[in-house]
Amino acid sequence: MKRLDVAKKALILHKKLAGKIRVVPAAPVRNRADLSLVYTPGVAAVSSYVAKNPEEAREYTIKGRMVAVISDGSAVLGLGNIGALGALPVMEGKCALFKTFAGVDAFPIVLDLSTTVEAGTQAEIDAIVETVIRVAPAFGGINLEDIGAPKCFEIERRIIEALDIPVMHDDQHGTAVVVLAAMINALKVVGKKMQSARIVILGAGAAGTATARLLHVAGAKNVIVLDSKGIIKRSRPQPHKQELATFNGEGVTGNLQDALKDADVLLGVSGPNLVKAADIRLMAKKAVVLAMANPTPEIMPDEAKRGGAMVIGTGRSDFPNQINNSLAFPGIFRGALDNHVTKITDTMKVRAAKAIAGLVKKPSAHKIVPDMFDKRVAPAVAKVIR
Amino acid sequence: MKRLDVAKKALILHKKLAGKIRVVPAAPVRNRADLSLVYTPGVAAVSSYVAKNPEEAREYTIKGRMVAVISDGSAVLGLGNIGALGALPVMEGKCALFKTFAGVDAFPIVLDLSTTVEAGTQAEIDAIVETVIRVAPAFGGINLEDIGAPKCFEIERRIIEALDIPVMHDDQHGTAVVVLAAMINALKVVGKKMQSARIVILGAGAAGTATARLLHVAGAKNVIVLDSKGIIKRSRPQPHKQELATFNGEGVTGNLQDALKDADVLLGVSGPNLVKAADIRLMAKKAVVLAMANPTPEIMPDEAKRGGAMVIGTGRSDFPNQINNSLAFPGIFRGALDNHVTKITDTMKVRAAKAIAGLVKKPSAHKIVPDMFDKRVAPAVAKVIR
Repeated sequence: MKRLDVAKKALILHKKLAGKIRVVPAAPVRNRADLSLVYTPGVAAVSSYVAKNPEEAREYTIKGRMVAVISDGSAVLGLGNIGALGALPVMEGKCALFKTFAGVDAFPIVLDLSTTVEAGTQAEIDAIVETVIRVAPAFGGINLEDIGAPKCFEIERRIIEALDIPVMHDDQHGTAVVVLAAMINALKVVGKKMQSARIVILGAGAAGTATARLLHVAGAKNVIVLDSKGIIKRSRPQPHKQELATFNGEGVTGNLQDALKDADVLLGVSGPNLVKAADIRLMAKKAVVLAMANPTPEIMPDEAKRGGAMVIGTGRSDFPNQINNSLAFPGIFRGALDNHVTKITDTMKVRAAKAIAGLVKKPSAHKIVPDMFDKRVAPAVAKVIR
Repeated sequence: MKRLDVAKKALILHKKLAGKIRVVPAAPVRNRADLSLVYTPGVAAVSSYVAKNPEEAREYTIKGRMVAVISDGSAVLGLGNIGALGALPVMEGKCALFKTFAGVDAFPIVLDLSTTVEAGTQAEIDAIVETVIRVAPAFGGINLEDIGAPKCFEIERRIIEALDIPVMHDDQHGTAVVVLAAMINALKVVGKKMQSARIVILGAGAAGTATARLLHVAGAKNVIVLDSKGIIKRSRPQPHKQELATFNGEGVTGNLQDALKDADVLLGVSGPNLVKAADIRLMAKKAVVLAMANPTPEIMPDEAKRGGAMVIGTGRSDFPNQINNSLAFPGIFRGALDNHVTKITDTMKVRAAKAIAGLVKKPSAHKIVPDMFDKRVAPAVAKVIR
């Protein structure tokens, strides 16, 4: 389908569905006997019991199965800060995928802060944090989504600290896990090692930052991160960028071209058309290019190929090697719920990436990650989240 | 079933179900083509469109069909302030009933304020109000539930003012509607008029206050409301009690016995076993007794009968005339959603009560309200919410 067709068809489908999820009773309520157990008077015994034994709530309520997909609509897809209602179709879609890929029940909550606090202030960050904490009791996990950087870092950290359920900002960690999975297999294909590879990350937002961190945890020693001002140095004012600069083992400085000189991997998590074939030619032989910007990547696959790249991946379904978060988040939360995990650690994320990569028995230039509809993926990921 | 059996069976059923609702995709996501419409890249067109045309969000998202059932767990059933987790089984049950009785999708949100504000303070009220406002965008209506009086009055009023979707505290207005419906038919059975009837309401909490107000709107001139301190006078400090005192057209003072002298209707919305047969004997001939406390009413039906009551109703399923909110709330929100109603007015509530009452063609002492599973109820109510 052409892009315009997809947009038109998506609008028609959404209007027809009028909401992409439904809430249904787990068991039918057919008569007074059913009602007396599901609702009054029987439910009183359950409420009393759960109030007295909160640690058993997950066994008697939706808490054991339900994930909240929460966004303030500040960084939606490639659309930016379009607000709560604009974010809602994406969050509904994500909930549909949770069920489809991993049998996880998920519900979207989109936050409108505008009437209670001023946009862009610390008060807004505080409001998001406290609102999520307040609505958390019914949920067994929280998937934060499409919240802009850098506020997403503080928001996620504070919510994780406050709650005893798994909390994950998927734009950060879902992306980091699938990119690490793709990179593990891509490096196998080109015969290089994570430890010695020179990895360039274009983009220091939520995805770039979390991926750089996870690659570091996974053993990468030379991770050069760039934003619109060039290679990030330790003298930058933002704390997360100071941290990113520490991953630049060889202390490379300059612009994108300086970074790409002899680089083994380019990861794009920024915006459309920022990289040319000539830039790719600066890279080492057997270069890996993962251009994740959606819908238009940093460089189109054919141009990356012209630049000499050997393994090329994007976020798109119309090219080989679609690297999509759907490979990670459903299984991560499935595992967290099943195994009563309260925090999703870096170790778990690395294991999840390896589990995804491991499903491709013989990685090749055209096959570095499993298919999104491969039914083995979510169970394999869920198994290692413990 | 005996009460103990019900409690035991309810616990077993809840553990088996592990949550009484499920979230399912509205349409299956079977392949990449489905995914490209439901999620990226197609969803971007929908998000852009909805962000630019927020008034159309209800046609493209769950906003047109989804009701939030929100509680802080401060007044759960007869159990009192048992908190968010304790409230969750009740809210889940309510969501199951929304779908069962009216096809309304509903999702429970239980609020834990304890870590962010001090209990019992104005700050807590502010926190509930602002939290509900912030999470509102995805919803087409808000059913507030089991929030204690008097804070429920301010909370509901402020949320109604802030949002352009219907907001209803069901403990207040759902109860008021079904009680008014029952009273319309009960008065028909005993051949008395709303305008001239002396109506005694025992209990000045959420239900008692809202019912007194709605009876006043429906034309009742003599509504005597009592709380634990006796008949409420205008000299009371609480604003809502001062208002209740104005409904006492004849200015009756004293205790429950003073109130019941020659009264035509006793409505109990307080607690178990507060009224004796001897009290009922003080009432006028052909007395109506609606003893709503759950699970144990203010007076058991057989004792009310011994006191000479002619029409007796309770909230229980094991006696005739079960007066239950399920007759009202599903149809009210069904109608509000279908007819794009932004505020649920007193006029609508009176019409809803009349619609429910009207479904009983020949009211009798044993049949003043329709059966809860009567499929005509929700559509009849929905039709008049406009």
